[in-house]
Amino acid sequence: MKPWSRDEFTEKLRAIGQARYHDKHPFHRLMNDGRLSREQLQLWVANRFYYQKNIPIKDAILLSRCPDRAIRQKWIQRIHDHDGTETGPGGIDKWLRLAAATGVAPEELEDDRRLLPGVRYAVDAYVKFVETRPWVEGVASSLTELFSPNLMATRLAAFEEHYTWIDPEALAYFRSRLTQAPRDTDHGLGIVLDHCITRPEQERAAAALRFKCDLLWAQLDAIYHQCVTPTDGAAG
Amino acid sequence: MKPWSRDEFTEKLRAIGQARYHDKHPFHRLMNDGRLSREQLQLWVANRFYYQKNIPIKDAILLSRCPDRAIRQKWIQRIHDHDGTETGPGGIDKWLRLAAATGVAPEELEDDRRLLPGVRYAVDAYVKFVETRPWVEGVASSLTELFSPNLMATRLAAFEEHYTWIDPEALAYFRSRLTQAPRDTDHGLGIVLDHCITRPEQERAAAALRFKCDLLWAQLDAIYHQCVTPTDGAAG
Repeated sequence: MKPWSRDEFTEKLRAIGQARYHDKHPFHRLMNDGRLSREQLQLWVANRFYYQKNIPIKDAILLSRCPDRAIRQKWIQRIHDHDGTETGPGGIDKWLRLAAATGVAPEELEDDRRLLPGVRYAVDAYVKFVETRPWVEGVASSLTELFSPNLMATRLAAFEEHYTWIDPEALAYFRSRLTQAPRDTDHGLGIVLDHCITRPEQERAAAALRFKCDLLWAQLDAIYHQCVTPTDGAAG
Repeated sequence: MKPWSRDEFTEKLRAIGQARYHDKHPFHRLMNDGRLSREQLQLWVANRFYYQKNIPIKDAILLSRCPDRAIRQKWIQRIHDHDGTETGPGGIDKWLRLAAATGVAPEELEDDRRLLPGVRYAVDAYVKFVETRPWVEGVASSLTELFSPNLMATRLAAFEEHYTWIDPEALAYFRSRLTQAPRDTDHGLGIVLDHCITRPEQERAAAALRFKCDLLWAQLDAIYHQCVTPTDGAAG
């Protein structure tokens, strides 16, 4: 099988997002249409925290498995972005602030008391994937960031329009991702295009990205089935 | 068994270094007495590189296993120290420069062609230890840094006196460790004292530090047996 050109390969990866990125999930549709209740948003915020707090863990694992120092020098920024520094809050702190603004206390997030099994399994599967698959497939799995800025922009507008009971200052996480994600994507996509040269390598990178889309989707499935019933909007 | 007080525990940890830190190894004695040949120094530099290049890997693994974000925020500095940044060289680059000054080219280090099996096994055992033991034991194993500044100071003086064919600029790695190690030790020791509260936990931390001393020692054993013979100084 002939390898895809860089452009073809990039197009294949983008098509995966078109088909299965979780911006199309019914739960996100309800969210962006302003049709979620406070309780439904709380459940989402509390569950998505488990994903957020595992991101720097996943990135540290990827760092430990990448033999290229130049790549590590850049990739490490992602850990700072989420863990924060001694002087500046990171993504996890910003998520805790978002949660507080929806009425969920930090300790309810930290101890996973509201964590749904399906969300836990999906996130744990992601960490395990990066731990066990070739490191470049871990990089490929991060490329959902190709698709996230649109969703973040839509979400920011939706929150500011529909969920006015949430302090707009608490939406800092979404704002920071508008700039972080494109920067990370440039780096990650370049690595995947440079390192996945044969067609089987390219196919495995595409499979990694599909796997990642699926686990984001599965988290919303678990949340949707827990809190959306046919009478409160799902069938609407 | 009653737990040790913080002072007693600290004293127990320090005593481990007194007894088994590799400053007392015959190879280091020859080095610091100015009795190593160019070839012997080259073998040491080339082999020790395998340890150096695995340090950021080990620290990324530790980062991925530490659930405390405040600890991760500080620990990550160690990865920058060794991997460097896009603008500043790290410890690995400094070691490559040292190697070049002794006449060993970077590619000879990067591809492990001079790596002795005993050194490989010792370093791999360290990485595996941090990967599989509780993370605080990984922190405890880093406490050989309590003992390293003295060795670094002695080594710097010895190189400047005895190995004048090595450009003193190439000794930057040793100089940087004079300040990095005490800073890291303050952090690491505090973590171990705070987290190892019961006597069994304290004993396991002490065992981790002994394990680390042993693996540093074993590297020098392998190097010594490879390049020091009874006629060229070992029996002197």
